[in-house]
Amino acid sequence: MAERKDRVVIVGGGFGGLAAAKALKGADIDLTLIDRRNHHLFQPLLYQVATAALSPSEVAWPIRHLLRQQDNARVLMATVIGVDKAAREVLLEDGTSQPYDTLVLATGAQHAYFGHDEWEAFAPGLKTVEDATAIRRKLLLALEAAERESDAERRRALLTFAIIGAGPTGVEMAGAIVELGRASIRGQFHTIRPEDLRVLLIEGGDRVLPTFRDALSRYTLKSLLGSGVEVELGQMVSGIDAEGVSFGDKRIETRTVIWAAGVAASPVAKWLGIEGDKAGRIKVGPDLSVPEHAEIFVIGDVASIAQDSGKPVPGVAPAAKQAGQHVAKVIRRRQSGNRSPLPFRYKHAGDLATIGKCAAVIDFGAFTLKGWFAWWIWGLAHIYFLVETRTRIIIAMSWLWIYLTGQRSARLITHGEAAKTAPLDEVDED
Amino acid sequence: MAERKDRVVIVGGGFGGLAAAKALKGADIDLTLIDRRNHHLFQPLLYQVATAALSPSEVAWPIRHLLRQQDNARVLMATVIGVDKAAREVLLEDGTSQPYDTLVLATGAQHAYFGHDEWEAFAPGLKTVEDATAIRRKLLLALEAAERESDAERRRALLTFAIIGAGPTGVEMAGAIVELGRASIRGQFHTIRPEDLRVLLIEGGDRVLPTFRDALSRYTLKSLLGSGVEVELGQMVSGIDAEGVSFGDKRIETRTVIWAAGVAASPVAKWLGIEGDKAGRIKVGPDLSVPEHAEIFVIGDVASIAQDSGKPVPGVAPAAKQAGQHVAKVIRRRQSGNRSPLPFRYKHAGDLATIGKCAAVIDFGAFTLKGWFAWWIWGLAHIYFLVETRTRIIIAMSWLWIYLTGQRSARLITHGEAAKTAPLDEVDED
Repeated sequence: MAERKDRVVIVGGGFGGLAAAKALKGADIDLTLIDRRNHHLFQPLLYQVATAALSPSEVAWPIRHLLRQQDNARVLMATVIGVDKAAREVLLEDGTSQPYDTLVLATGAQHAYFGHDEWEAFAPGLKTVEDATAIRRKLLLALEAAERESDAERRRALLTFAIIGAGPTGVEMAGAIVELGRASIRGQFHTIRPEDLRVLLIEGGDRVLPTFRDALSRYTLKSLLGSGVEVELGQMVSGIDAEGVSFGDKRIETRTVIWAAGVAASPVAKWLGIEGDKAGRIKVGPDLSVPEHAEIFVIGDVASIAQDSGKPVPGVAPAAKQAGQHVAKVIRRRQSGNRSPLPFRYKHAGDLATIGKCAAVIDFGAFTLKGWFAWWIWGLAHIYFLVETRTRIIIAMSWLWIYLTGQRSARLITHGEAAKTAPLDEVDED
Repeated sequence: MAERKDRVVIVGGGFGGLAAAKALKGADIDLTLIDRRNHHLFQPLLYQVATAALSPSEVAWPIRHLLRQQDNARVLMATVIGVDKAAREVLLEDGTSQPYDTLVLATGAQHAYFGHDEWEAFAPGLKTVEDATAIRRKLLLALEAAERESDAERRRALLTFAIIGAGPTGVEMAGAIVELGRASIRGQFHTIRPEDLRVLLIEGGDRVLPTFRDALSRYTLKSLLGSGVEVELGQMVSGIDAEGVSFGDKRIETRTVIWAAGVAASPVAKWLGIEGDKAGRIKVGPDLSVPEHAEIFVIGDVASIAQDSGKPVPGVAPAAKQAGQHVAKVIRRRQSGNRSPLPFRYKHAGDLATIGKCAAVIDFGAFTLKGWFAWWIWGLAHIYFLVETRTRIIIAMSWLWIYLTGQRSARLITHGEAAKTAPLDEVDED
């Protein structure tokens, strides 16, 4: 009988886990990728699903499909509930377990409400396909309810949209909601005028896009204000409920609040019995393995990786991808008997965020871009980084269509009939 | 003050209601189209959403969008709960009402389980976008669960798919499930082989496609059997539960049953206080108005329309469209003072159904088509009848892609994580 191959188990089919799996193509191992979802999600474009520009199947692909040409890999749709480090087994919710020689944990992050979990019901975040369609439903149902509403105050609350957090996701959502609202309202609603729409972006820090350089933050702020977004800086949210949001000494009546403020790592620290940092991330060694467990790697949003610069590696898609590829390299080296340390070096390609039609900012480090040229670069870069050829064509076409006609193709309200619109917060978000 | 315009209220934005609204473009009326959903659904292609070939937004469009260039029309997303014939008002669930001078009821049909409503939980039908994504989820989760399952009997039940009813929808679903299963399994699953898949089509009558002529039924049966579908004719289903389906003296263990057998009209008869036929349809006069209520029209699947031939007008999309256009013509004539009767004459264009890749049947009455040529005609006809230019392009591309590569683009499982897969019937179908 042939010698048993090394079993590599990757948990999580996001950017990090998928990159690791793909970089292990052809390796003489038994690879198992476990995810509780059947699909890899291209999160950078998820806000476009939430704002009805793209369909879910344009930003998500079955993991099986993506790994179909990789003979050493199998995909398991299953939910992990723990890790038995001594037995070297991943424990699954159905009671079975998956043995490993090498384990890669890449389970990503989820929303964090700064200790206010009760806000989640009123302020969904944007992490999964369901989050995106739930937000889309909320946005579109609010417009429908406003069209029917005769009371001016309630109507105003229905037409007010608040986004908490002015990082890239918050900025992109704010810009896209303005566009969705105006494009939808024009000629299609009878009692709402485009100028009735109110979009608020609330940020705890003193500027939008806090991780970008100051000049780009200022440009972004100007762009947002120019397109009609109200920006509230230095405002910590103190309350969110079904009727509105409170911050500082203000109270805004709104039926739609979107959370783009904070994330925390998946419960990997608990699985491993290791203490995580305050966001739940695990401090890994230079080669991304866990201290005292060289056979366990942690990458992506669940890892806290120190850099020589002192700044931690950011929780962005390119960092997760690079980490995945690095781990694959370490695994291949170990297979060939080379166990000398191979430290991970993160290469920062740049920060980019889109603000709205024909406006984006890109920080390449050495230089920056803003305005319509940055917007085109942003679009091309995202099409380039998409995982699948077919989707590249479809998304390019969808964008061109929206650009030329202003019509958003995916304005479907699903899982929410008219019957369920009042009160909006009771719409089943599952 | 200007004289009040005639108020025309249309309930239902399906083929009938939408056709009536569009045919009233430019008429000097106040038109209100009420639907509890925000979208018009192109039902003939819904089975392709259920089998992961198309995305929901490719077969459904916001009704507002479709009527955006029609100044006399407004769209209300609201749920109708009744009609006050004396006051001439449509009653809405939110407690308000909508007055009318002319009312058009076009609310369509829903599934009917022949008195066995308890079957619905185990055998979803295919009427709404949510129905389609729920069936897609069931199909894909069954494959995922089978991949993990080690018990041979349970695995066989997971890989068995039963469709009840061999009308066009049932035949199309059976063919598409075979294709979805084989295309998905090949190279993407490790423990399942394509030949493990079992698709059953169960029909109470003595042939498939009972409304088509006999020669086409025979051809369809041969095609289905050739592609590996097991067809059970003359079999009345006697039981459906979480574990399987019973008919005659047989019991088939399966986790996935799809209902394509019967429909009943929406509760329009109750709203109007008129007795419907056994499927709940209302018998209308030659001009499609309700007896003794010339101001109320009933069209589409809720109407029972007699023809000179003795055969009733069939419950198909072209019939609903023609009826909608006819009602618009009657309304325009009445506006011009002409109240002489204008009887509806249904023009039957033909029956068509697709069986699988390169196989379809078309009955034009004067002649019939079958095989690959019919399949191409079927595809072109459906693209032609699609409501929107953009969707025509996207669907043509999607089909071309599947035709050339065999890859289905929309294999997303949403609203169902791995955690929820066992038992399958407990997955939230809402």
